Amino acid sequence: MPNPTAAILVIGDEILSGRTQDTNSHYLAAELTRHGIDLREMRVVADVEDDIVTAIRALSDRYDHVFTSGGIGPTHDDITADAVGRAFGAAVDVRDDARALLQAHYDRQGTELNAARLRMARVPADATLIDNPISAAPGFTIGNVHVMAGVPAVFRAMVASVLPRITGGTPLLSQSLRIDRGEGDIAGPLADLAARYPGLSFGSYPFLQNGIYGATVVVRGTDGPAIDAAIDELAALFPDERT
Amino acid sequence: MPNPTAAILVIGDEILSGRTQDTNSHYLAAELTRHGIDLREMRVVADVEDDIVTAIRALSDRYDHVFTSGGIGPTHDDITADAVGRAFGAAVDVRDDARALLQAHYDRQGTELNAARLRMARVPADATLIDNPISAAPGFTIGNVHVMAGVPAVFRAMVASVLPRITGGTPLLSQSLRIDRGEGDIAGPLADLAARYPGLSFGSYPFLQNGIYGATVVVRGTDGPAIDAAIDELAALFPDERT
Repeated sequence: MPNPTAAILVIGDEILSGRTQDTNSHYLAAELTRHGIDLREMRVVADVEDDIVTAIRALSDRYDHVFTSGGIGPTHDDITADAVGRAFGAAVDVRDDARALLQAHYDRQGTELNAARLRMARVPADATLIDNPISAAPGFTIGNVHVMAGVPAVFRAMVASVLPRITGGTPLLSQSLRIDRGEGDIAGPLADLAARYPGLSFGSYPFLQNGIYGATVVVRGTDGPAIDAAIDELAALFPDERT
Repeated sequence: MPNPTAAILVIGDEILSGRTQDTNSHYLAAELTRHGIDLREMRVVADVEDDIVTAIRALSDRYDHVFTSGGIGPTHDDITADAVGRAFGAAVDVRDDARALLQAHYDRQGTELNAARLRMARVPADATLIDNPISAAPGFTIGNVHVMAGVPAVFRAMVASVLPRITGGTPLLSQSLRIDRGEGDIAGPLADLAARYPGLSFGSYPFLQNGIYGATVVVRGTDGPAIDAAIDELAALFPDERT
């Protein structure tokens, strides 16, 4: 059976303005690979409800899972819950279970659960909450969409809560070989090798380091021994390059 | 006149597998903001021709400009030029002007312009070349799509070549204020402030640092004096917080 597929949707003007480098996608990409989930696409959209709704619908139709990051805090620009609810035609309102989580958290802190904070208990009716051990305000799963926070520490905690619930596939394995030769010298032999291992994928990632052109060749697949064999053949083609 | 809009499309399995953190989008996002181009969306897709074609068509229909990164090297997984050509119904073949650039570069290096390297001269017929002062292999512009390399140093050089050709708009200005208070305390006053400055956008970006919850509020827009005024009002609301 093929591995489940996934997309990541990051929501936030601050990424698009260049103010903030998104690191959540990179973190989750590696976690999904380990979990045997095949990440096919990432998108970043602005804090604009129509844009979020359009992206949620497109990605949730096309992939088995969609993971979102951002836009579930207490401020006026946090509109992800409403957008996801709209995408699924689900009512979004303050939910008692989510409110209880927040109430307990702010009681412990001696902080008032004011109207702004209560916005974080707005969750679509049929959604399952995603635990937030750091700052209490939950994420949620509705349909095949997993809605998580943008703050990296909270995002990672939510990923740790949600991934074990999802049935993964065969983890994708990889090995790489750094070759200090121009990609133009590597390309021919590499294409031949790739043709002889149709079950594996061969990527070549060029670099330019201290004036030296080279490439890292990455062999990926679910068949470990085949990857070993392909890397050995590649190393034999470029005998001085194994690192 | 509103600023031109743009999207970034990054092409590469290595980003989706979590092996490589894409930094080109973040770099270009900041450059576009400075140039007065309104970046609305980013996407990352795999080295799969159909996926690239679909993304190119969707983004080039919707935005004024599309900038791509990755997949224009000499190896078998470099399929961006063919995909972009297909998206525009344009024939893609080795072009004499691109071949001449490569020939001169490899002659200087004493390296053979072999079949693999010649693939980098495959450019759609009507495209305009984008200069690559680092490793010669050009990018290209076809329609409203600007096709650039994935290697960061080359990507940046190509951005420097292509941006001056594009008519920008009014640069987006921003100022930020760090407030060491929970977002739940900031949300109410911030929403009121945002309502009184409809021409500006107000973003709140929470952080958790050494156990302290806080948020950076960013005010963005093209009207500098209005931004100054809004930031002054915000600072007056949280008098101990100006940093």
